[in-house]
Amino acid sequence: MTDLRQTTGAAVRTSCRLGKLTGPTPGLALGFVQANLVILPRDWAFDFLLFCQRNPKPCPLLDVTEPGDPEPAVIAPGADLRTDLPAYRVWREGVLVEEPREITRHWRADLVSFLIGCSFTFENALLTADVPVRHIEDGVNVPMYRTNVPCRAAGRFSGPMVVSMRPLKPAQVVKATQICSRLPRAHGAPVHFGDPGAIGIGDIAKPDFGDPVSIKTGEVPVFWACGVTPQAVLMEAKPPFAITHKPGHMFLTNLRDSDLEGE
Amino acid sequence: MTDLRQTTGAAVRTSCRLGKLTGPTPGLALGFVQANLVILPRDWAFDFLLFCQRNPKPCPLLDVTEPGDPEPAVIAPGADLRTDLPAYRVWREGVLVEEPREITRHWRADLVSFLIGCSFTFENALLTADVPVRHIEDGVNVPMYRTNVPCRAAGRFSGPMVVSMRPLKPAQVVKATQICSRLPRAHGAPVHFGDPGAIGIGDIAKPDFGDPVSIKTGEVPVFWACGVTPQAVLMEAKPPFAITHKPGHMFLTNLRDSDLEGE
Repeated sequence: MTDLRQTTGAAVRTSCRLGKLTGPTPGLALGFVQANLVILPRDWAFDFLLFCQRNPKPCPLLDVTEPGDPEPAVIAPGADLRTDLPAYRVWREGVLVEEPREITRHWRADLVSFLIGCSFTFENALLTADVPVRHIEDGVNVPMYRTNVPCRAAGRFSGPMVVSMRPLKPAQVVKATQICSRLPRAHGAPVHFGDPGAIGIGDIAKPDFGDPVSIKTGEVPVFWACGVTPQAVLMEAKPPFAITHKPGHMFLTNLRDSDLEGE
Repeated sequence: MTDLRQTTGAAVRTSCRLGKLTGPTPGLALGFVQANLVILPRDWAFDFLLFCQRNPKPCPLLDVTEPGDPEPAVIAPGADLRTDLPAYRVWREGVLVEEPREITRHWRADLVSFLIGCSFTFENALLTADVPVRHIEDGVNVPMYRTNVPCRAAGRFSGPMVVSMRPLKPAQVVKATQICSRLPRAHGAPVHFGDPGAIGIGDIAKPDFGDPVSIKTGEVPVFWACGVTPQAVLMEAKPPFAITHKPGHMFLTNLRDSDLEGE
């Protein structure tokens, strides 16, 4: 049996396509970029593309497909977005209606797919530089919070930025800022650190999504723009039809983490 | 009379709106970012937005408006794209039909405006760092060439990259690469240097657009992705209706050159 940690993005996609992998993807194909997936009818795709263009920190676009084309030709030539993720979510009018393993029967000629960068890339870079990532140490999901920082609206899409949080010592904040500044297509540098109230977070111990983590003496909470933002905004806009990945069940690309370094 | 070199982007826009400025903008409002303008019907806007997203080096997007809204709210709140440039070009089916001073009577509720970064920003940065810019020294237009490097196609838009050229000594190439890498929204780092034939340029002395410049002993030609690319691709696709700025007659934004530094 293949060790899916020490393999390629393409091998993980094949496992999904064959129905062998149906679980979450963190830690798989280490060094390969993982991506969030949002699929929308063409009628809604212009507004969403504009929303991502205006909000690149929460929504760093890695690839956008032609209407009806399930192949993300830039980041994974030959892949099929209908079968190559472990699990999907189907939404109607903003309501989750199904969590299928593949979406072939839902496919339509007007669907546009958006692949959006993900925090796993910068977390790998932080760990490599000995900057700790608390929720990985604790074995839980990253804590995420709705803020009072508005995204730039685009057409029918608007709403607050969602942020993820990792506690760090001040010198580590500096190091993390330097590392993440080099990764603009993986949410880039932090958007805030310190006082959670300054960005509208009421209780740091009660995240809106994910799990709480401990903040040790001498550490400050550091906040990054989060890929949950576009999903939250999308569900709020209630498009008639949408498909996303199931949280934690990401799309594995052919890109290496280093490919996300700026320009 | 105001010196339009030592003023703000907003002041230059007001001069345009009042009909006082109808000439080219290089050197005006020094330190403020200038932008290329492309206006398309919404029906064509998705493909063009996708083209820019897929080709960020020739087409670095600074702002995209909502359909029908003439205000680029991100980079110049309060500005009116129908009146605030010195001169425009109106295109029908890819053919230039008019060069008006303002476009109020052409405006429609379905028009989407794209503001695209411009080489003036990185040329200012080069000059500040004592890296010479030959066509400015020579007082001519920058030489530009069609290459055999294909852009990534998007819907109805495809075509080769157009590049601009500036001759530099090797140590200056290194310095220019460092400086321009920090300006991803002003075409970023060079795409090629040295042999023009390697990117399909037949005769360096005969640019496809602009004027030839001298290459001195010890210098190599250095090539940057050029903002003429989207215009060339646009005209090739022959949309029923489009408006652009007149070459050299750019839109002055509220952004400072330093605002274009990455992330």
